[in-house]
Amino acid sequence: MNVGDNKKALVLFSGGLDSTTVLAIAKSKGYKITALTINYKQRHDYEILASKNIIASHSDINHIIFDIDLTRIGGSALTDSSLDVPKEESSGIPITYVPARNTIFLSIAASYAEKLKIREIYIGVNAIDYSGYPDCRPEFIASFQEMINLGTKSGSEGSSFEVITPLINMTKAEIIKTGLKLGVDYSHTVSCYSLSDNGEACGNCDSCKFRKKGFMDASVDDPTIYQK
Amino acid sequence: MNVGDNKKALVLFSGGLDSTTVLAIAKSKGYKITALTINYKQRHDYEILASKNIIASHSDINHIIFDIDLTRIGGSALTDSSLDVPKEESSGIPITYVPARNTIFLSIAASYAEKLKIREIYIGVNAIDYSGYPDCRPEFIASFQEMINLGTKSGSEGSSFEVITPLINMTKAEIIKTGLKLGVDYSHTVSCYSLSDNGEACGNCDSCKFRKKGFMDASVDDPTIYQK
Repeated sequence: MNVGDNKKALVLFSGGLDSTTVLAIAKSKGYKITALTINYKQRHDYEILASKNIIASHSDINHIIFDIDLTRIGGSALTDSSLDVPKEESSGIPITYVPARNTIFLSIAASYAEKLKIREIYIGVNAIDYSGYPDCRPEFIASFQEMINLGTKSGSEGSSFEVITPLINMTKAEIIKTGLKLGVDYSHTVSCYSLSDNGEACGNCDSCKFRKKGFMDASVDDPTIYQK
Repeated sequence: MNVGDNKKALVLFSGGLDSTTVLAIAKSKGYKITALTINYKQRHDYEILASKNIIASHSDINHIIFDIDLTRIGGSALTDSSLDVPKEESSGIPITYVPARNTIFLSIAASYAEKLKIREIYIGVNAIDYSGYPDCRPEFIASFQEMINLGTKSGSEGSSFEVITPLINMTKAEIIKTGLKLGVDYSHTVSCYSLSDNGEACGNCDSCKFRKKGFMDASVDDPTIYQK
């Protein structure tokens, strides 16, 4: 499907494996894309750097980096340096959950989308190979879409926003295979929650585990550089 | 009603007439209060100053000022200095509407509330004497509450958030009378969208008009200093 001239989309884009795949999917449909990267002062700057490196090869994408300091709030191993990223699996929602993160990100995305007259908001949430975060589930996304169409001028006047989640029911291997077909270079993407100071992935955190298994299940070489 | 020991509430608190009344209402119920002021780089700093001045007389309230630069997004006369605040009434939702503002504010409030183990979030929205902003209506608030209970760890695990809107069906005069009974000093509150450089209210913007009429309808002296 090609969406035709001047059809615009906003893509929430972290520089990770999932959102980079979403960016490629949206681009393949012919959208004029605004990629929105939220710098929330996560543990390391490599995600932001990755997002810039990936966008560097897409001259037609408008890249916005928006700052919001979620370390002020804390409550997560990703936003509070006194909490360690776990190396072992835990039961329930892990401590890497950031309180209301996707709600905050989608709210900022909706604000930009309304300003830029964009109605389609892409987000790379996934409810299969994931850590159980509540704000990655389809019921949350559906509810957010309903809410934002009540809480905005455009939405309440009938020009509705749509929150689009192309990965939500894919396995990590399916996501990787989809991206590769679209030419994604995953060596530039960053997933690890606990990178070393020189940017090497830990290989042990939830996010690394899902990523490793994804490449293995897809029978594709994993380009990630892991710590020795 | 007194909610008893250690019952906590988070109050979204701008330093304006409405949210200062909400603060007084929550306090009168006996909550231990965290007041959250969002500095979104609105047209003038007087709101932030007002919020500090008001909290100064409440030593038992935890005051948090959180920064998010919505002028990066713009799209409103309050967040884009190239757009003028209208002096005349317009039809429909006015240009002072800030895209998705209350969604963003409530999302940040919910993130803090989850971190601080607070379940009751107060917000001073009003759908009677108001500018028609979609994110002040009861249907938006109900939808936000549903969404946030799907999108957070606490909410999804059954420890639900409640978004409480004591003013939603009050006239401005009723709000003022309620606040006065609770000892609110409205001279410290700021409502004007278009303050002069020395902090005097314009008397003409939507927000000034509702405020003026409120004091008049309540048959109470208006302590606001208006520009000559």
